[in-house]
Amino acid sequence: MTLAELAAAVEHRSSGRLAAKIEGERDRPIEAVAPLESARPSELSFLANVRYRGAVATTRAGAVVLTAADCAALRPAMSVVVCEQPYAWFAFAAQLLHRPAGRKPGIDPNACVDPAAKIGANVWIGPGAVIEAGAEVGAGASIEAGSYLGRDVRIGAGTRLYPGVRVQDGCSIGAHGIVHSGVVIGADGFGFAPFAGTWIKIPQTGRVVIGDDVEIGANTTIDRGAMGDTVIEDDVKIDNQVQVGHNCRIGAHTVISGCAGIAGSAIIGRHCQLGGASMINGHITLCDRVIVSGGTLISRSINEPGFYSAVFPFMTNRDWERNAAVVRHLRELRDRIRALERRLGSAPDIEDLEK
Amino acid sequence: MTLAELAAAVEHRSSGRLAAKIEGERDRPIEAVAPLESARPSELSFLANVRYRGAVATTRAGAVVLTAADCAALRPAMSVVVCEQPYAWFAFAAQLLHRPAGRKPGIDPNACVDPAAKIGANVWIGPGAVIEAGAEVGAGASIEAGSYLGRDVRIGAGTRLYPGVRVQDGCSIGAHGIVHSGVVIGADGFGFAPFAGTWIKIPQTGRVVIGDDVEIGANTTIDRGAMGDTVIEDDVKIDNQVQVGHNCRIGAHTVISGCAGIAGSAIIGRHCQLGGASMINGHITLCDRVIVSGGTLISRSINEPGFYSAVFPFMTNRDWERNAAVVRHLRELRDRIRALERRLGSAPDIEDLEK
Amino acid sequence: MTLAELAAAVEHRSSGRLAAKIEGERDRPIEAVAPLESARPSELSFLANVRYRGAVATTRAGAVVLTAADCAALRPAMSVVVCEQPYAWFAFAAQLLHRPAGRKPGIDPNACVDPAAKIGANVWIGPGAVIEAGAEVGAGASIEAGSYLGRDVRIGAGTRLYPGVRVQDGCSIGAHGIVHSGVVIGADGFGFAPFAGTWIKIPQTGRVVIGDDVEIGANTTIDRGAMGDTVIEDDVKIDNQVQVGHNCRIGAHTVISGCAGIAGSAIIGRHCQLGGASMINGHITLCDRVIVSGGTLISRSINEPGFYSAVFPFMTNRDWERNAAVVRHLRELRDRIRALERRLGSAPDIEDLEK
Repeated sequence: MTLAELAAAVEHRSSGRLAAKIEGERDRPIEAVAPLESARPSELSFLANVRYRGAVATTRAGAVVLTAADCAALRPAMSVVVCEQPYAWFAFAAQLLHRPAGRKPGIDPNACVDPAAKIGANVWIGPGAVIEAGAEVGAGASIEAGSYLGRDVRIGAGTRLYPGVRVQDGCSIGAHGIVHSGVVIGADGFGFAPFAGTWIKIPQTGRVVIGDDVEIGANTTIDRGAMGDTVIEDDVKIDNQVQVGHNCRIGAHTVISGCAGIAGSAIIGRHCQLGGASMINGHITLCDRVIVSGGTLISRSINEPGFYSAVFPFMTNRDWERNAAVVRHLRELRDRIRALERRLGSAPDIEDLEK
Repeated sequence: MTLAELAAAVEHRSSGRLAAKIEGERDRPIEAVAPLESARPSELSFLANVRYRGAVATTRAGAVVLTAADCAALRPAMSVVVCEQPYAWFAFAAQLLHRPAGRKPGIDPNACVDPAAKIGANVWIGPGAVIEAGAEVGAGASIEAGSYLGRDVRIGAGTRLYPGVRVQDGCSIGAHGIVHSGVVIGADGFGFAPFAGTWIKIPQTGRVVIGDDVEIGANTTIDRGAMGDTVIEDDVKIDNQVQVGHNCRIGAHTVISGCAGIAGSAIIGRHCQLGGASMINGHITLCDRVIVSGGTLISRSINEPGFYSAVFPFMTNRDWERNAAVVRHLRELRDRIRALERRLGSAPDIEDLEK
Repeated sequence: MTLAELAAAVEHRSSGRLAAKIEGERDRPIEAVAPLESARPSELSFLANVRYRGAVATTRAGAVVLTAADCAALRPAMSVVVCEQPYAWFAFAAQLLHRPAGRKPGIDPNACVDPAAKIGANVWIGPGAVIEAGAEVGAGASIEAGSYLGRDVRIGAGTRLYPGVRVQDGCSIGAHGIVHSGVVIGADGFGFAPFAGTWIKIPQTGRVVIGDDVEIGANTTIDRGAMGDTVIEDDVKIDNQVQVGHNCRIGAHTVISGCAGIAGSAIIGRHCQLGGASMINGHITLCDRVIVSGGTLISRSINEPGFYSAVFPFMTNRDWERNAAVVRHLRELRDRIRALERRLGSAPDIEDLEK
């Protein structure tokens, strides 16, 4: 593909919203994307981070995607795709240049597909995959080696399940999704009633319902609802090793980084961003456009969009020992400050520190 | 089943400990349980949370389980199961109404069962399951698609392994257990001796020994002991994505929420509750009835039953930046307060702050 | 094996670096290793922890490994292997006494091996394993039940993949590695460009490249690079449920405990130790020999070897509520101390507390 053809394809794929101007050789053939430092003349690169601006001068890439401002400032020697959203442009271009290795459609002879399952056109079902009665797999989907679809599971058109994904009875995944290896959709939520010193299991009779364009990272788990459903809306992106409890609802376009945990019945708004290893308590609500720092535990509902954090700052272990010991006595310290202020006749309104 | 039949069945199943009185139609047919807001006249519901009391007035549920006090206060229009432990009553009723979709017993032709394995009566072994020599599967157990039992593994009667569970050589699980997809029982513990700048593996020769009535959530891992065994006692309930290190012992009736981690050789008492993403350091002991908040790291043994916490409170990122910067200087702040107190002749006993 | 034969074998296996002197019966037959409290006369034990010194007097072990100093101080009744690195000596001895149950080499008839894969000599491929075209498995490796090797994957000589490991297209693992069940190597990194309120996937075109002598714990995930590779150097030991993001590099001899998370493009030095549930932010660098406490989040690069911590100290929930409330007001407290100091004419240089 030439640079000009690539630009036309990106414009088309973005429904005309990503037009670009090419400075330089429109006919340069582009085969792949690559980082600035290792790109070859047949490759397209991208200024991922302001820190790497120097690399634009030295890269051997055949072309680079830049904003008009960066292009004017850096005046690179190679061809430039000038565009106001270089990262999105680059993402579309990379998708066009790196199509996943397609599988010839078909059902591997070592797959176990129940005769009462409905398999759409152009579906690939890998060796060792098991598909139970009543399951439906949409056109162009792929259910790879060793994956499992329980009874009445629905997988949307074009969705890819990598090897070793398990989707339990009754759960559904929309179209154009990507589910990585080791994901478990629809295991029982964690619900028990205490009774005479033991735990009585609450049957988990809800489902997991996942929208379109959802990506779910390796070894992530999403539990089925206790009575109602667990819902993941469209275009949600979930990283690896994330836990989503029963009856959660995750709003559209929200991204959740690795190792995060969302306890049961939490409601997460749209366009939220949950950092790595962040934890959301159960039965609380986050409004739209909440951003949570990595490692932060959110213990109460948040009604204001914004950026929230709760991390103990790291330090040397020696400093930590000294400072952490004081954390155990903060209330006393506050009271001692107040006492000093009273002695000096400068005590502020005590209320300001309550809560 | 009519409401009266259901009440009789719950009473029987609870060994007579959960008697209930029915107010209203004893003969109303009940088919399922459902949340108050979506329940239909053929369904039973339950007041899960005081906040939802208003829903009792508007639900279309055919019956609801309430305490005598709630029943008197709310005076609902539909039939009521009056009972002093509504949650436990509801749990038993839900179990009776929602029996898991049973599998006809048998060994799927695509399973690989070593001739030297012992398979009990009425066992289901799914496609792709692998059972090695010496393994024993108790009556009525099910080993679902793609699960793996190593040599000499023992699975108790009635225990269900969902698709994709791995139990390594020599480990055992008791009766009536539930093990969700992706669980790994008996991987090697993490043990290495340092030697000349490299790490020498300590062979992990112990086992994992799991009691009766244990439930283990999806993608949880429980390592085998280094020399002795890792032990999970009866009626322990473990959520998803939990890590239990080698040589831990988890006491009976303890519940562990998702993403928690328990380092090697930790001993957890009975009737404990470990919150989501809590972490227990290695080689420490928690006595019975310890409750640990979500996100809390327990670094020392606890000898007093009680509720323990350690979470940095969340706030806006801007406030966090300001406050966290001070955390690095708490010791200095304390010293400055002390200096002020000395100047004013009011220094308290310094010992009170020395950890 | 007699004690003397064992000592000779350890010396040989350690290339002569672990010589030991035997006090007592050189001809005592030793069959296994065991903890001091349960060891029998045919077993070898080891003083793992100074706390257990008393057990040396009461153990029934046939022999024990001790330093010369401990031997002189404890004067045990049984045979002693006297050696300056007892833990390493014990590790080698345990490896010699507990060789993993070998599999007869071969390809199980229920495995699916593409004819275009290259399988070395003495390899075991278990039932349900799937090996795609172009994959190469080195001599003596074992790819156990239900494991998956994508196209062009390379597995080094003698490496063991336990049941249910997935290695995606193009990734490689060196020689003498151990990969536990549920591990996913080479799932897509988490990369999306924002565009018009939605997320555009960045194809993840890099690989995962893993060195020799690496052990990876159950259900750990290591993502492929976005453009360049994710690299795990030799002798790295990774525990269970660890997440390694795209384009990370983990230096040789580093150990990572369970539930840790390393965000994308982080560079970890050699000989580092990351504690359980520690979290490393993306795009930062840790120099060699950094030790991170369990539960600690590292948010900036570290250029000094040392021991770093960041944990909120645990306390009873009641104390925590009181102290945590003050954390939200630390900046104000600092300002109030400063105001008091000014009033008393003793304000220190304000700069000392900024940042």
